[in-house]
Amino acid sequence: MNVERLNRLLSGLNSLGLDGIVLMPSSNLRYLTGIGFHPSKRLALTFVSADGRTPCLVLPALEAAGVRAAFGTSAELFTWTDAEGPAQALHRAVARTFGAHSGTRSAHIGIEYTTMRVMELRALEMAALANGCAVETIDATPLMAAMRMVKDEDEQAAMAESARILEAALRNTIEHIRPGMTERQLARFCSNAILAAGAEGESFDAFVAAGPNSANPHHSSNDRPFEAGDLIIIDCGAVYGGYASDITRTVALGEPGELARRVYATVLAANTAGRAAVRPNITGEQIDQAARSIITDAGYGDYFPHRTGHGLGLEVHPCHEPPDLVAGSTTPLNPGTTFTIEPGVYIEGVGGVRIEDDVVITRDGYKSFTSFDRELVVLSA
Amino acid sequence: MNVERLNRLLSGLNSLGLDGIVLMPSSNLRYLTGIGFHPSKRLALTFVSADGRTPCLVLPALEAAGVRAAFGTSAELFTWTDAEGPAQALHRAVARTFGAHSGTRSAHIGIEYTTMRVMELRALEMAALANGCAVETIDATPLMAAMRMVKDEDEQAAMAESARILEAALRNTIEHIRPGMTERQLARFCSNAILAAGAEGESFDAFVAAGPNSANPHHSSNDRPFEAGDLIIIDCGAVYGGYASDITRTVALGEPGELARRVYATVLAANTAGRAAVRPNITGEQIDQAARSIITDAGYGDYFPHRTGHGLGLEVHPCHEPPDLVAGSTTPLNPGTTFTIEPGVYIEGVGGVRIEDDVVITRDGYKSFTSFDRELVVLSA
Repeated sequence: MNVERLNRLLSGLNSLGLDGIVLMPSSNLRYLTGIGFHPSKRLALTFVSADGRTPCLVLPALEAAGVRAAFGTSAELFTWTDAEGPAQALHRAVARTFGAHSGTRSAHIGIEYTTMRVMELRALEMAALANGCAVETIDATPLMAAMRMVKDEDEQAAMAESARILEAALRNTIEHIRPGMTERQLARFCSNAILAAGAEGESFDAFVAAGPNSANPHHSSNDRPFEAGDLIIIDCGAVYGGYASDITRTVALGEPGELARRVYATVLAANTAGRAAVRPNITGEQIDQAARSIITDAGYGDYFPHRTGHGLGLEVHPCHEPPDLVAGSTTPLNPGTTFTIEPGVYIEGVGGVRIEDDVVITRDGYKSFTSFDRELVVLSA
Repeated sequence: MNVERLNRLLSGLNSLGLDGIVLMPSSNLRYLTGIGFHPSKRLALTFVSADGRTPCLVLPALEAAGVRAAFGTSAELFTWTDAEGPAQALHRAVARTFGAHSGTRSAHIGIEYTTMRVMELRALEMAALANGCAVETIDATPLMAAMRMVKDEDEQAAMAESARILEAALRNTIEHIRPGMTERQLARFCSNAILAAGAEGESFDAFVAAGPNSANPHHSSNDRPFEAGDLIIIDCGAVYGGYASDITRTVALGEPGELARRVYATVLAANTAGRAAVRPNITGEQIDQAARSIITDAGYGDYFPHRTGHGLGLEVHPCHEPPDLVAGSTTPLNPGTTFTIEPGVYIEGVGGVRIEDDVVITRDGYKSFTSFDRELVVLSA
């Protein structure tokens, strides 16, 4: 249990008037405790009461040894076996955490709406009922996301190492490209290169889109062989120390046409402008605007259909890891906030270009975790 | 939309007194429609009314083209964009499917408790409220699982091919074993071999446990190098045509001790007895007993801590894919039912042995999709 983070969570719960929070095996639990286990079909929930008493966990007996070692006396464990089922352990955890509400007002409990399943919700409601207390649930995702937004030195060091590993793998991947190879083959090579370079895993499945497919930002890698004249987008991510990196580079197989070169230069300028805008107190909307205006001014505004970037940390999705770099994202950002900058232009008949870096806001500007060459690489076809 | 399966679902809904079912992007949806998309952070739900009207889907506009092509006129689509959000599309789907309940009794809706998140449940409840109707939800997992239990010819053909691909990959993996290689390296090799052999994916992450680690059935593959004298358990799975295979073999690196050989012979006898017991109308409990009694009689009963097998099909978990081969599983099984048989014995100081096959009940007995050599292979150390 990370005491500093737990104390910040308790303040957050109290300021929202919540009686406690019940967490899934999730990135939020990992943030609080360092424990990285994943949801399974077996119920596992962590209970934190806003009154500061020792947290408790309901978990399968199978998982108990590892979790007990990690927590010591900083959490109480209620374990259950497949033969028993989870009901009794859950009953004890609810009694301990929310028992004071028996017969009085409902307990107000934060839960993770995007992670908790109906299975856990119904089990929680039944255990509360059996304890004579009603529960009202509130989505705790925004509270946890806000807590996680500013990364401390250790977190930033993990992200820098995650980016270093990823760039080594990306270098190998680009060197591996040959005409006739397919998107799926290159994506698989990239995934293996990320693991071989020392990552704990990928932060998402490596993505490759080439030639006409590169013009579709939502393409799924398929079996089309690379041809001379293809633009090839490679978007990939690593995990190290639990923290994600995420990079995109676009290379040309054989000499690209004039229009493809102009698109590339525009996207590179947008990436550069987006990074240059990053400083304390800037908003996601302003960074998006800095990158987007370059593309709009070049006449490609209609071909940039996505946000400029997303938060990055234990996850790669902005609902768990803000900020979102998009119109309407108006929260001023503090030093230590980490996100991607990834403008792209996708034109049917030409292809697509995306250039993505991972940055952190510093006291006087920004630092980029990724430094992979951004100039257009032309491979021999 | 598979009309025969849809009609069976409608009968099931009506016999349970449900007004309809709301499905996540899940294996159940794939079973009904052939569409294999996965849950994302964007809300996507399929509505089937028990009264037989055309089903409808709420889904992100991004996904619409592929889904529309798959359905033709057999489903209505309500799409939403990131700018709009899903509320309006969801409102229309609820009005269409459950609108008749406005102001009257609650609509009784089946949902998948182990797949649906609180995010979707709350959105569904709010859309119902906005339509003036209350909803009561019931777990539809058992209904869908029962529907899927007996596999038709096409499903069995996909499972046979999935097993064929898997066995080719397993052969390559066993040939690749060398002293000094680690569990994690071999597991990664195995995963790649499965994809290279023509699988669409793995049905779960390939598992390797060797030497002392093999004695722990819940081990996670780590970086311990293989040594002479190790028993090496390899448990892996492929997906083909959406259908899973799942095999385990245990090999010896260098000559195994006498006790290891005796354990291997016992587990092989249990696997053989389990398979031999398979015929129409047998229960999961009886198959478990047939395998388990061999192990108990040999004196290793306390070292066989898991069920004898689990259902297999679009998934590998018995809560979605019955039957469970365990005490208490007393439903008589019909021809076409598919499952694993995987007894194991795990003894500290000796190691572990598990031998797993995939079988289907036939009219007069069983057929095994897997036929990989079951005799102990001793590799030179």
